[in-house]
Amino acid sequence: MTRSGPPTIDLNADLGEGFGIWRLGDDEALLGVVTSANVACGFHAGDPVTMRRVCTAAVAAGVAVGAQVSYRDLAGFGRRFIDVPADELTADVLYQLAALDGIARSAGGGVGYVKPHGALYNAVVTHEQQARAVVEAVGAYDASLPVLGLPGSALLRIAGDAGLATVAEGFADRAYTAAGRLLPRSEPGAVIHGEAAVVERAVRMVTDGVVLAVDGTPVAVAVASVCVHGDTPGAVQLARAVRGALETAGVTVSAFAG
Amino acid sequence: MTRSGPPTIDLNADLGEGFGIWRLGDDEALLGVVTSANVACGFHAGDPVTMRRVCTAAVAAGVAVGAQVSYRDLAGFGRRFIDVPADELTADVLYQLAALDGIARSAGGGVGYVKPHGALYNAVVTHEQQARAVVEAVGAYDASLPVLGLPGSALLRIAGDAGLATVAEGFADRAYTAAGRLLPRSEPGAVIHGEAAVVERAVRMVTDGVVLAVDGTPVAVAVASVCVHGDTPGAVQLARAVRGALETAGVTVSAFAG
Amino acid sequence: MTRSGPPTIDLNADLGEGFGIWRLGDDEALLGVVTSANVACGFHAGDPVTMRRVCTAAVAAGVAVGAQVSYRDLAGFGRRFIDVPADELTADVLYQLAALDGIARSAGGGVGYVKPHGALYNAVVTHEQQARAVVEAVGAYDASLPVLGLPGSALLRIAGDAGLATVAEGFADRAYTAAGRLLPRSEPGAVIHGEAAVVERAVRMVTDGVVLAVDGTPVAVAVASVCVHGDTPGAVQLARAVRGALETAGVTVSAFAG
Amino acid sequence: MTRSGPPTIDLNADLGEGFGIWRLGDDEALLGVVTSANVACGFHAGDPVTMRRVCTAAVAAGVAVGAQVSYRDLAGFGRRFIDVPADELTADVLYQLAALDGIARSAGGGVGYVKPHGALYNAVVTHEQQARAVVEAVGAYDASLPVLGLPGSALLRIAGDAGLATVAEGFADRAYTAAGRLLPRSEPGAVIHGEAAVVERAVRMVTDGVVLAVDGTPVAVAVASVCVHGDTPGAVQLARAVRGALETAGVTVSAFAG
Repeated sequence: MTRSGPPTIDLNADLGEGFGIWRLGDDEALLGVVTSANVACGFHAGDPVTMRRVCTAAVAAGVAVGAQVSYRDLAGFGRRFIDVPADELTADVLYQLAALDGIARSAGGGVGYVKPHGALYNAVVTHEQQARAVVEAVGAYDASLPVLGLPGSALLRIAGDAGLATVAEGFADRAYTAAGRLLPRSEPGAVIHGEAAVVERAVRMVTDGVVLAVDGTPVAVAVASVCVHGDTPGAVQLARAVRGALETAGVTVSAFAG
Repeated sequence: MTRSGPPTIDLNADLGEGFGIWRLGDDEALLGVVTSANVACGFHAGDPVTMRRVCTAAVAAGVAVGAQVSYRDLAGFGRRFIDVPADELTADVLYQLAALDGIARSAGGGVGYVKPHGALYNAVVTHEQQARAVVEAVGAYDASLPVLGLPGSALLRIAGDAGLATVAEGFADRAYTAAGRLLPRSEPGAVIHGEAAVVERAVRMVTDGVVLAVDGTPVAVAVASVCVHGDTPGAVQLARAVRGALETAGVTVSAFAG
Repeated sequence: MTRSGPPTIDLNADLGEGFGIWRLGDDEALLGVVTSANVACGFHAGDPVTMRRVCTAAVAAGVAVGAQVSYRDLAGFGRRFIDVPADELTADVLYQLAALDGIARSAGGGVGYVKPHGALYNAVVTHEQQARAVVEAVGAYDASLPVLGLPGSALLRIAGDAGLATVAEGFADRAYTAAGRLLPRSEPGAVIHGEAAVVERAVRMVTDGVVLAVDGTPVAVAVASVCVHGDTPGAVQLARAVRGALETAGVTVSAFAG
Repeated sequence: MTRSGPPTIDLNADLGEGFGIWRLGDDEALLGVVTSANVACGFHAGDPVTMRRVCTAAVAAGVAVGAQVSYRDLAGFGRRFIDVPADELTADVLYQLAALDGIARSAGGGVGYVKPHGALYNAVVTHEQQARAVVEAVGAYDASLPVLGLPGSALLRIAGDAGLATVAEGFADRAYTAAGRLLPRSEPGAVIHGEAAVVERAVRMVTDGVVLAVDGTPVAVAVASVCVHGDTPGAVQLARAVRGALETAGVTVSAFAG
């Protein structure tokens, strides 16, 4: 893959994933690292006070706000597939997206993109009806909003067909198959450990458009955003290291969303 | 009280107060009677599918959509006072208002006003902090939105002080004290029964700006909207009778919200 | 199939499926018809006040109380499959079962059996892990409680293997395949309409152990309980007709649970 | 106040106050310190998996399990007063108590007492109707269960009048008024800081039955349990110090509940 000029990449992470008294992850620290914040909208996490606080902080930090929409599942943190009929899913996504956008606008910003969370993220890789339902919600709300998702997913294909902008993302800390798909978390070696390894993969993914698959073969991955995490000890430090290495390699780290 | 020209009045009712499989009231019938629909926003009632359906129907019927914001209380239908701190209440109202507005806009309309529901409605008659919290949410979202509430309430006073438009409403089926306040529901005679009595009170309230208090003294009530109900057998019929009598009396029934 | 002596059958129906202000079905009327009440436990329907009221009425009517356990899904009424991990499902079922049993005991009764609701009912026909999770919860709570479900289901097989009593149920208003399974609701003709047809099927199912499949072939169905419904207009009348016809045919209608 | 023989005291703390993915406090560490665990029952915190895990660990550690019942308020962590009608509160408490008891019994234990949480705890100090509602639930479920609460509260008085056993608790880290009531948290100095001060107060409260009020006057406080906390950094260490000092002072630390 050849590229002209210095590459640019977005770094995204999940933020605002507490609820009420409970906190998860270090939102403040992540806002100093990422360029896009996937903000929970109340269905798997994210009470309105948390949403307001994170939006205000993101606006202050110049970080783009994305709607991290999910199944209605506080008890399961949105990590359990729910067989929601399409019309219900469309309405649920529309509700979450509008709520976060209103809060973000009142904080001086606005939602800049949409990214499904957890089990919904995984479902819309292949589940045509749910992918279509998400796309319909975004189109109904604001057809200028890009959709962030997995390259090759039904979601990005259907979103593109519907005229929405799409943003493909990669994972520096996840193993890929030779076909360029994520190795399921249930497989051994699915998560890459070690700062050096993750950082190297992030840089190569962004500068060369290549990642080494589990069998060692180089796989082309064209991504406009790299997902980092902030919910485990050391995660923020790892995210910082990824960003630092990208910048050292001459990559411009900036948000894709206005 | 002197008025120039033929009087105009808005009729408002609560709609969309089901949740999931459950329905409450006859939304479709009410849309043929009222000019303003207070649509539940998901906290005391109103799942996103219901919200979408009601907004779509309201737009089709030319009925204004209002955000019927409430405490987070599905189990209690928002009828139980909750001592929510101001910042939480502001965020909760902002969330509900934004969610409904997004759904209404995607249906070709938009939220035209805000009316608190149930125990929150009663609380903000006197509870300064909660009234202020509601006003702050409306102002933060869209300072051009009017607030609908009880004449003489802290809510309308604080909203007016904050530069929001206010709309005072009356109740044709509720008894008033000589001081012009609603007789609490716990008091005998608090609810006026009988179509003829309710209709007569509605017409006099609108055309003369007067209602007879429980002790028989006429009380001045200046209202721009009359609240009717749709959740009991016969309620829709009563609402129709009120509207019919108002029109017969030469009153123009139309929404206050654009 | 030969039987000795007059046959006995249980009639079960779902009760207590309101939530807060919302009602569904006519619990009081159904208690005059059925011998077993599947009472919602709060996860798909059934707030604690409703649970108490239904248990008290069931005890007064001499109707057995069963725990109608379900996925945590008020918005979807438990009708959406949720891919809950086994340990979470076991804990969820245990929680619901214990809560209802405590309420039923405080009303002078107690839970007499367990029946999964909605999407969980359908899932445990074939989903081994979820079926095992339900069985584990029942065994952990009270291994003397029978499990009510579909003949041939994974649930009843695993429950039997675990030493639990099992109760097979039939549906007089649902079409069966020649293999003795329920025709999916998505198929045309899945629901049998017409009181005469439903009543005839109920009587033949109970007295002969036979039901006519959609292709007309007689299929053996050995059931100890017949499920009737109460959530649609005419449903209670249909349930009454089924019971009347069974009694006229010499069948004893009584609960299987003590 | 004279006492015969060496004093005995119970140490209680709130446990299981996470929900789903979220954790709060260090349950495992606290189980090594306290003799009674107030376990959240799902209404302000405590999903069924967490409840099971904490009950199993408490049984293994020989710690008594109490039902920490609360308002239905996950978003507010049960810290917001809710004006719940008495019959609803009774049913809510009964539901929570039964659910936890079933889970605890399936873990080889059982609920040994009931303690209201948060805003409900504060409400039932003076709110007669809500106190009565809680007492009614406990009596309806198991009249042999003691109720843990504030000395002088309406809850303990009404529970005693109803024939329930009552257990008065003290707070070593809270300031008392000269009248023996807790100084509201909104007042300066309401929380006692410093391990030495808290430990000294705990020992004197237990061995002498006396605590120094904010104005320096000694106040008699007869308590059978001391509440310690585990949700802040250093809290577990403080709890350990309190227990150590009590034991050094010759106090037997053991649960009041069987």
